Amino acid sequence: MVIVMSHKATDEQIEAVMKRLKEKGFRINLSRGVERTVIGAIGDETMLGDAGIELLPGVDKVIPILRPYKLASRIMKEEGTVIRIGDVEIGGGTVQVMAGPCAVESKEQLFEAAEKVKQAGARILRGGAYKPRTSPYSFQGMAEKGLQLLAETREKYGLLIVTEVMDPRSLPLVVEYADIVQIGTRNMQNFWLLREVGQCNKPVLLKRGLSATIEEWLMAAEYILSEGNPNVILCERGVRTFESYTRNTLDLSAVPVIKHLSHLPIIVDPSHALGKYELVPSMAVAAVAAGADGLLIEVHPNPQEALCDGAQSLTPKKFGKVMVQVGEVARAIGKKV
Amino acid sequence: MVIVMSHKATDEQIEAVMKRLKEKGFRINLSRGVERTVIGAIGDETMLGDAGIELLPGVDKVIPILRPYKLASRIMKEEGTVIRIGDVEIGGGTVQVMAGPCAVESKEQLFEAAEKVKQAGARILRGGAYKPRTSPYSFQGMAEKGLQLLAETREKYGLLIVTEVMDPRSLPLVVEYADIVQIGTRNMQNFWLLREVGQCNKPVLLKRGLSATIEEWLMAAEYILSEGNPNVILCERGVRTFESYTRNTLDLSAVPVIKHLSHLPIIVDPSHALGKYELVPSMAVAAVAAGADGLLIEVHPNPQEALCDGAQSLTPKKFGKVMVQVGEVARAIGKKV
Amino acid sequence: MVIVMSHKATDEQIEAVMKRLKEKGFRINLSRGVERTVIGAIGDETMLGDAGIELLPGVDKVIPILRPYKLASRIMKEEGTVIRIGDVEIGGGTVQVMAGPCAVESKEQLFEAAEKVKQAGARILRGGAYKPRTSPYSFQGMAEKGLQLLAETREKYGLLIVTEVMDPRSLPLVVEYADIVQIGTRNMQNFWLLREVGQCNKPVLLKRGLSATIEEWLMAAEYILSEGNPNVILCERGVRTFESYTRNTLDLSAVPVIKHLSHLPIIVDPSHALGKYELVPSMAVAAVAAGADGLLIEVHPNPQEALCDGAQSLTPKKFGKVMVQVGEVARAIGKKV
Amino acid sequence: MVIVMSHKATDEQIEAVMKRLKEKGFRINLSRGVERTVIGAIGDETMLGDAGIELLPGVDKVIPILRPYKLASRIMKEEGTVIRIGDVEIGGGTVQVMAGPCAVESKEQLFEAAEKVKQAGARILRGGAYKPRTSPYSFQGMAEKGLQLLAETREKYGLLIVTEVMDPRSLPLVVEYADIVQIGTRNMQNFWLLREVGQCNKPVLLKRGLSATIEEWLMAAEYILSEGNPNVILCERGVRTFESYTRNTLDLSAVPVIKHLSHLPIIVDPSHALGKYELVPSMAVAAVAAGADGLLIEVHPNPQEALCDGAQSLTPKKFGKVMVQVGEVARAIGKKV
Repeated sequence: MVIVMSHKATDEQIEAVMKRLKEKGFRINLSRGVERTVIGAIGDETMLGDAGIELLPGVDKVIPILRPYKLASRIMKEEGTVIRIGDVEIGGGTVQVMAGPCAVESKEQLFEAAEKVKQAGARILRGGAYKPRTSPYSFQGMAEKGLQLLAETREKYGLLIVTEVMDPRSLPLVVEYADIVQIGTRNMQNFWLLREVGQCNKPVLLKRGLSATIEEWLMAAEYILSEGNPNVILCERGVRTFESYTRNTLDLSAVPVIKHLSHLPIIVDPSHALGKYELVPSMAVAAVAAGADGLLIEVHPNPQEALCDGAQSLTPKKFGKVMVQVGEVARAIGKKV
Repeated sequence: MVIVMSHKATDEQIEAVMKRLKEKGFRINLSRGVERTVIGAIGDETMLGDAGIELLPGVDKVIPILRPYKLASRIMKEEGTVIRIGDVEIGGGTVQVMAGPCAVESKEQLFEAAEKVKQAGARILRGGAYKPRTSPYSFQGMAEKGLQLLAETREKYGLLIVTEVMDPRSLPLVVEYADIVQIGTRNMQNFWLLREVGQCNKPVLLKRGLSATIEEWLMAAEYILSEGNPNVILCERGVRTFESYTRNTLDLSAVPVIKHLSHLPIIVDPSHALGKYELVPSMAVAAVAAGADGLLIEVHPNPQEALCDGAQSLTPKKFGKVMVQVGEVARAIGKKV
Repeated sequence: MVIVMSHKATDEQIEAVMKRLKEKGFRINLSRGVERTVIGAIGDETMLGDAGIELLPGVDKVIPILRPYKLASRIMKEEGTVIRIGDVEIGGGTVQVMAGPCAVESKEQLFEAAEKVKQAGARILRGGAYKPRTSPYSFQGMAEKGLQLLAETREKYGLLIVTEVMDPRSLPLVVEYADIVQIGTRNMQNFWLLREVGQCNKPVLLKRGLSATIEEWLMAAEYILSEGNPNVILCERGVRTFESYTRNTLDLSAVPVIKHLSHLPIIVDPSHALGKYELVPSMAVAAVAAGADGLLIEVHPNPQEALCDGAQSLTPKKFGKVMVQVGEVARAIGKKV
Repeated sequence: MVIVMSHKATDEQIEAVMKRLKEKGFRINLSRGVERTVIGAIGDETMLGDAGIELLPGVDKVIPILRPYKLASRIMKEEGTVIRIGDVEIGGGTVQVMAGPCAVESKEQLFEAAEKVKQAGARILRGGAYKPRTSPYSFQGMAEKGLQLLAETREKYGLLIVTEVMDPRSLPLVVEYADIVQIGTRNMQNFWLLREVGQCNKPVLLKRGLSATIEEWLMAAEYILSEGNPNVILCERGVRTFESYTRNTLDLSAVPVIKHLSHLPIIVDPSHALGKYELVPSMAVAAVAAGADGLLIEVHPNPQEALCDGAQSLTPKKFGKVMVQVGEVARAIGKKV
């Protein structure tokens, strides 16, 4: 890190800062400018912390130099991570589409959704058994019964299952039924839950928090990785801004940024980001063009009757069309679906 | 809610929308304008949901009319809620100050902090035993040992204790030791945790999420209230914006807004919002002037050695001065500390 | 608009609101619910304003129903606007690329940029003669001399010219030299300037303000359209959020939203949005996939020596590659470049 | 500035960066760490720019060290600036209140407003003759006729006048009539206008842009100061966030931040920030407690009939009450009104 001293800092103050840095294990590099003295502190900031330097007399500001994540960074691992579940690859040259209803509602609904998304070419079925809802009066999910229906559907249609875990106590159950365990937006910084999915043996889909910076998101991945689970899939799903026509603002530039900073695969969820089904097709295609490794799309056999987020769900027919376009754009940039 | 039909909506489409609304239990009010037909749907939106209306052909948009929280609203309960713990009142005419270190680090640290904040006039001691940290490599708190130290400190100094719960599995322990259970920013929408503190017999301090709207915050309170716990204290602690000089942007206008919309008491945490101790005094005083029922302030005997958030902690001496100013402003607006 | 009365509103208050609405020229539709009385006011809100209704006793809130822009809306004009300048079309099935340096610096620089962007397939040259700079100590542009160099370059290379106007007093000069007049982000709500470009006979490129909602942006277009100039090209260039790795957050979903709400063509400027050249190619391609009618890309013969925004400028060679990818994605979605 | 080299940077790349920095006039300080090499560049960044360093091979990132404003900074001028207009002081120990209608509408309206705000203790009358309006169909102000009414009102009531300039061509007129020239939110980065008010002989009230960082705001002040006008009053008026209950989010922490970074006086406009009159009193008082040098408050004799922003205007009676509270809080913190 770099310590910028105040323009009025005395020699004693500069000495005191250097002394403290040395005590904490940093090497020192002193640079006296015309206006300011700047002290470079060389060492592992991640482990040494900031040593309370900011509060020492005469210090103007402390600027970190290194990025605070290690395991998630491309410096640690240069080639991109490819996650393999059976014959399905996430992070290679294929665009993987995860599709299905927001919430599991019934066997009929789930079977129909599964059949249709499979026909359209998706390999992974999404569906929530535990639903985080803003209102206590809204449908909260079918819980274990929903997980069982997901497992049954997998059996019947040969699709992989991705589903959300909200509470550490239901993690063993979710891990038992799911192929990919999803950490939702609201739990991106539920650190205990992150640690525990870091200890499970299933890939984790980690959604970006509603107002998380890319660095914080990678730090959340670092929690999982540091517990020994290397299979983290990042999922961009929109961030909160002042724009209110869309539910959130899909930050597609997160795709090339993550590709630059990290080796982890990244997929995009346009359904939750936009909140309006009619905007989903354009942004699904744009996400693929931006380099996303996959998509997470809500599909419901009958969106008007959906118990959750119907407004952003595609009908199976519309989803089929999106898959065609996605395929064309994927091929145009040298990928396949 | 109000359904605005598209300018091209046909009579059949308008009929279909009205039919569906009636089926769902709404009464109807039709209004044909020059440019648009608007349908008013009368009924309890909170319970009836939006009935998938947005997706019906010919519908342009659906606008909710009523606020989605009930128990938290001032309509439900006109007089302000006053929470009493022993002889300490939160929400009456007194400004209650909760102060102490970010994290419990040792008995010495905690005892010294407790002694000093008590001398300065605070009645409630804050201190975290479980710490939500962005980095897995940072100090994560003393856990149960920290809770025990808090209890010991309460015994010795006669202060009430407020401390955070992060995981439903440690809730029984936290409830056993704490006088007020804190739900942190990152858990404002951890709905299972909200339900369970809603079933405990201790007052709950509910921090605003980092990018939560006031409405979402009141919906989180609604989760707690709807489980039967009426003692919720809201805590404004800054929201995320583009401004980077301060850690977050303290939204002090949330104080009069909450007073307008809800009967619940609201306090302000300037320490976390600002992230720089030198800005805390001004904003603590401003919060009181804005009508806050209390403050949550970080005080550390030796901020330079703090294991967590030292940069935003006041020394006991600085805290003493803030308490004097807070008292003067409180009296100026007819309150006491 | 819809007026929601307070749950405590008296009959007299309801009467008074209706009386006032009638006086102001609205027709009335009254709807008494269990919890609330709601009054629908039918008439042209755009012209009638809100009549001060919000302040009348007993009124809880006033909700507008209609969108406040008319000329810019797709309701007014169903087919998309295509702007023709010579044989160049903006808004039809072609992706138009506008490329060139941030600022005009010299004849050599501009000629080289023009030659290279033309070779790569662009038809329109961008280059600023007047530069809005955050710091008064930064290069502010070559002014009229820059405009002359742009005109000379057009002559020599047969490219159209787009350049920014910052001040109404230099508008006649800019109109004389430019083929497309650009209104920059910081001037999106410079209403006098909008009116005056609305009276000029050149197409206007209207960049979205740094924190403008889509509605405000269309209202800015409405200023231009309402003065009689129908040729407005919208340009998404990123909005301000808390994310700091990229300069701004490119809101690509604005593309399908604008296509839904308005008939005006929309292009995307990934260079200013991202601020880092290495992220530009992915987002340029994504913008085309999202349905953008064109791109605005910074290209500099020697970015390291650029007087302005070098970090986000592509070299001619990198730009050539982007054009190839853009072409492939454009064809994949049925467009051409 | 500090240049952080990539972990893969070669010695040749490091050499090349140092060579270039030296050519551009910087002195060099090299620091080789375990993971990274860091180069300190000592010199006046404000003038030398970033020298295109970010684009050189092997460079990971460039971090500026010094703040980019000089004349506006407290380093340049330690004691706070006090602006004197006749016997009115802005920036000393007095809280100056500027009050009046959003727009000048008629002589009757303005005279009544002036009389009432004077009675309540304000010394400065606000009122817009030129109004920046989101919609081209809204009332745009009385222009020169409005300025004349303001001058007439000053004559009659002995109040100073603050009014907005929107266009450089009307600046001479505004300067002729006004005591303080206001630059509105939307023009905070209208750099030509800033330069020209920098050359006028009247104090300038500079509102913060809707999504301006504090640094950008001070850079806008720097434009004015660098032209020779030392009398800049900053005005915080809310920034744009995701919260929609209030029009904007009032960033009161800007007050102590500005006091820390700059010598310029700062006032607060709660009316525009909140957009709802009932929230104005609390936040006016809070602003004073936070240390603001003054307030800008909308007062209209009859808000229900206001042609502009009636919903946020106080009646004279309510304004009188606010002035009493403001006085009490000002005295509590050792100031006077």
